[in-house]
Amino acid sequence: MKILGRPLVVELTECDCKVLNNSQLLEQYLNEAVRRSGATIVQSVFHRYNPQGVSGVVVIAESHISMHTWPEYGYAAVDFFTCGSSVDPYKAHDYLKEMLGANDSSVRELARGIPSTTDEILKHKPSATG
Amino acid sequence: MKILGRPLVVELTECDCKVLNNSQLLEQYLNEAVRRSGATIVQSVFHRYNPQGVSGVVVIAESHISMHTWPEYGYAAVDFFTCGSSVDPYKAHDYLKEMLGANDSSVRELARGIPSTTDEILKHKPSATG
Repeated sequence: MKILGRPLVVELTECDCKVLNNSQLLEQYLNEAVRRSGATIVQSVFHRYNPQGVSGVVVIAESHISMHTWPEYGYAAVDFFTCGSSVDPYKAHDYLKEMLGANDSSVRELARGIPSTTDEILKHKPSATG
Repeated sequence: MKILGRPLVVELTECDCKVLNNSQLLEQYLNEAVRRSGATIVQSVFHRYNPQGVSGVVVIAESHISMHTWPEYGYAAVDFFTCGSSVDPYKAHDYLKEMLGANDSSVRELARGIPSTTDEILKHKPSATG
């Protein structure tokens, strides 16, 4: 694959159920996680569902971080979709794991980009060619 | 894994570069894709980068759909994070592939949920137990 990004796909489990239901707190935590990773916030959207659960997405200059919570299972699905070498998504992960009181986390690193028979890391080009 | 969602991780390639740079058009297409999948739009955020590229996220009642474009490579990374059986993310995929003029797409279906030695599909519970 011609790789343009390596998002982290994270399952945070055995979290604090009250935190997972608190949209304001989660927005604060996710924004702080973005800052700690070195990324730049563009805009965020948070939504609390009835009767429970929160979805939050922070669009960043380097793609996005999203979170969906299932308080009834103490579970949060978090995606750290970042590009470039200046951002460290693991710092965001470590901070969120702590703030959500997660006893465990499972992290998968995906390769994203243009399917190809050879592996290569692509850089952003300064201008469009198309 | 105790599965709570099966997001589609999609690479759309050989797309129309002009479309990939048009934030307004992409917002229109992504919202229509959400409708065609049967999902419910909560809120959307779109951002065009300088000199090129667009990031867009639509938060839906069933999680989110995100898109990041690299016009210089004719490439778009799209995630359809949906839960529940009432939404068909493949309908959103097919529509977006057509509207972006993508000659090819690669689709991976991920299992998201609570790591476990046995496989099981979990349902949303009506109220929090935590």
